Amino acid sequence: MSEFDLIRTHFARLGAGREDVVLGVGDDCALLRPPPDRDLAVSIDTLVAGVHFLADVDPGALGHKCLAVGLSDLAAMGAEPAWATLALTLPAEDSAWLHAFAGGFAAVALAHGVALVGGDTTRGPLSISVQVHGLVPAGQGIRRGGACPGDLVCVSGTLGDAGLALRGLLAGEPIADFLRARLERPTPRVALGLALHGLATAMIDISDGLAADLGHILEESGVGAEIRLADLPLSPEVRDHLARTQDWSLPLASGDDYELCFTLPPGQVAGLPALSDRSGCALSPIGRIRAGSGLICQGPDGSPWTPERTGFNHFPDPG
Amino acid sequence: MSEFDLIRTHFARLGAGREDVVLGVGDDCALLRPPPDRDLAVSIDTLVAGVHFLADVDPGALGHKCLAVGLSDLAAMGAEPAWATLALTLPAEDSAWLHAFAGGFAAVALAHGVALVGGDTTRGPLSISVQVHGLVPAGQGIRRGGACPGDLVCVSGTLGDAGLALRGLLAGEPIADFLRARLERPTPRVALGLALHGLATAMIDISDGLAADLGHILEESGVGAEIRLADLPLSPEVRDHLARTQDWSLPLASGDDYELCFTLPPGQVAGLPALSDRSGCALSPIGRIRAGSGLICQGPDGSPWTPERTGFNHFPDPG
Repeated sequence: MSEFDLIRTHFARLGAGREDVVLGVGDDCALLRPPPDRDLAVSIDTLVAGVHFLADVDPGALGHKCLAVGLSDLAAMGAEPAWATLALTLPAEDSAWLHAFAGGFAAVALAHGVALVGGDTTRGPLSISVQVHGLVPAGQGIRRGGACPGDLVCVSGTLGDAGLALRGLLAGEPIADFLRARLERPTPRVALGLALHGLATAMIDISDGLAADLGHILEESGVGAEIRLADLPLSPEVRDHLARTQDWSLPLASGDDYELCFTLPPGQVAGLPALSDRSGCALSPIGRIRAGSGLICQGPDGSPWTPERTGFNHFPDPG
Repeated sequence: MSEFDLIRTHFARLGAGREDVVLGVGDDCALLRPPPDRDLAVSIDTLVAGVHFLADVDPGALGHKCLAVGLSDLAAMGAEPAWATLALTLPAEDSAWLHAFAGGFAAVALAHGVALVGGDTTRGPLSISVQVHGLVPAGQGIRRGGACPGDLVCVSGTLGDAGLALRGLLAGEPIADFLRARLERPTPRVALGLALHGLATAMIDISDGLAADLGHILEESGVGAEIRLADLPLSPEVRDHLARTQDWSLPLASGDDYELCFTLPPGQVAGLPALSDRSGCALSPIGRIRAGSGLICQGPDGSPWTPERTGFNHFPDPG
C-alpha cells in the first residue's frame, strides 16, 4: 500500500459533506470557497511523540487530540470550524494503528462538521501537524488584546485534570477514566466560543496553563488581573489532590486542559448561567481585570500568593 | 529565550506587508481575508531530516526549500501565493541555525509576497511542516483531471538535476553548484502557473519524478500519453550522465525537480515561446495525450521503452 493509498483508505470519507470544498484531497492543492463576509481563522499545531504524548498512546485518542487541539484554537477566536489538513509522519506503515488514529480524528471532525481537505504522509519519527481553518464574521474574531479593567475573568470546565492525569501516567500509577479522558480526549469548547461573540472582550484557550495563558491576555491587553484560587473550578480528583498536597501549580500551571479563559464586561455576569446552558459547559468567574500589569493570585485563605511556575515551555530558559 | 521569542525574533518581519492579513502571528489563530471572487488553494508538506534532506544541510537552503516546495504546489494549481504557516520541530534551541533557516525562508517569502501568519515551534526530531495558502479566480484552479487526447504534454525547466545532485551527495562526491542549487534551492514556477490560466487543461508539479507525476494527470484525466525521451529537456550535466550510463530513470523517475508538467490543446504550441518569455523558464513539449491509459515512452532511438521505476514512495510496496 502506497502513502497515497494509506491516506485514501483511511481518510477519504472525511473529505465530503461541505459545499464550500471545491476540491478536496488528491490534487496539488485543495480548493476552498470561504463565504465573502467571513474572515478565515487558521492555526497549525504539532504533536511530537515523547514531547506531547507518550509513543504508546492509544492511536484513537491521539487522532482525537490532534484535531481537538486545533479546534480549541478556533474556539478561542470564536470561529466556526470548517476544514483541516493533516501532515502525518510515521515510523513505519501500520494499517491497524492508522485505522484507529483515523477513527479518533474522524469522530471529532464529524462532530464539528470539519472536512479533511489535504495532507501529507511521510516516513520518520512519529509526529503530527494539523492545521485547522475556521470562519468568523469579518472583523469579529475574538482576540487576546481586548480585556479592560473591571472585566470579569472567566474559565470554562475544570482546571488541572490533564496535568493530574499526566503526572499519574508518568509515575506509572493507575488513572481514573475521567482524568485519562481529560488528558487524551480534550473537548474543544467550540459552542462556547461561538456563543461569546459580542460578549467576550478577550479570549484564549488554556493549553499551557491558566497563569501563562491568562498572562498572554494581560500582556496583549496591557492590563493586570487578580484571581481567587478559591474560585478556580476543580474536579473532585484535583480537589482531593490539592487537599493532600496544596500544590496549586496543578490548576494554575499544568497544560493541556483546552478550556477557554475569557473576559466579560461586569454587566454580563448575570448571563453566565444561560451561556453555560447554551454552550454545554460549566463557566466560572475567577477574578477581575485591573489596571496595571501582572497576575495577582489571592490564596485559598484570602492572602496574597505567588505561583512558582507559569506554564510549559519547550525551550526552558537556561538561566 | 522561549519558543515564543524564537518565533518572534526570527520570523516577525515576515508577517507584515499584506492588507489581507487581519491578524498575524501571536494570537490563537491568524485572521485572513480572502477576496470574495477567489478560491483559496491550500497545501501542506512535511520535510523530515534523513528522509527529505540530510540533517547537516545548509539551514538557509532548508528554509528556502520548505517554502518553495509549497509554492510549487500553488503554482501547479495556477494560484497566486498569499500566506504561509510554519510548524518547526527542532532537537534543540540553536539561534544561529534558526537565523539561517529564517533567512532562507524569508528570501522566498519576500520574492513571492507571502506573509508568514502562524506557526508552532516544538522540541523533537528535526522536521518542518509548511502550509501554503494561495488565491485563484473562483472555479479556475488548474487541476490534474482535464487532459484530453491530442493535448501536448509540456514541462518547464530541465529534469533530473535534483536527482543527480542527490546521488552525488549520497556518494560523497563533489557536486557542481548548479546541481546543488537545483536540489537544495528549487525555483517554484509561480509565474508560469499564473500564465497558464485559460491555456493548460491539466497541470501538476514534478516532485516525485515525471513518470509518476504525469501518471497522476493520466489517471485523473482518464487518458494515456506518449512521450519522447529524446525531447526531455536536460541540463548539460544530466545529458553527460545519460551519455555515460543510459540511465533514463534519472530524468523520468527521480524526484525534487519542482518543475511543472502541463497539457495544452494542440493549437497552443505556437504560443510556447511567448509563454516561456513571460514566465522566465524554458518550456518543452515532450509528447501527446492519447486515448486509453498508461504512459508510453519512445526511447532515444525511437523504439518503445519501459521505465523501471516510476517515482519515489515513502512506503514501498513490500510485494
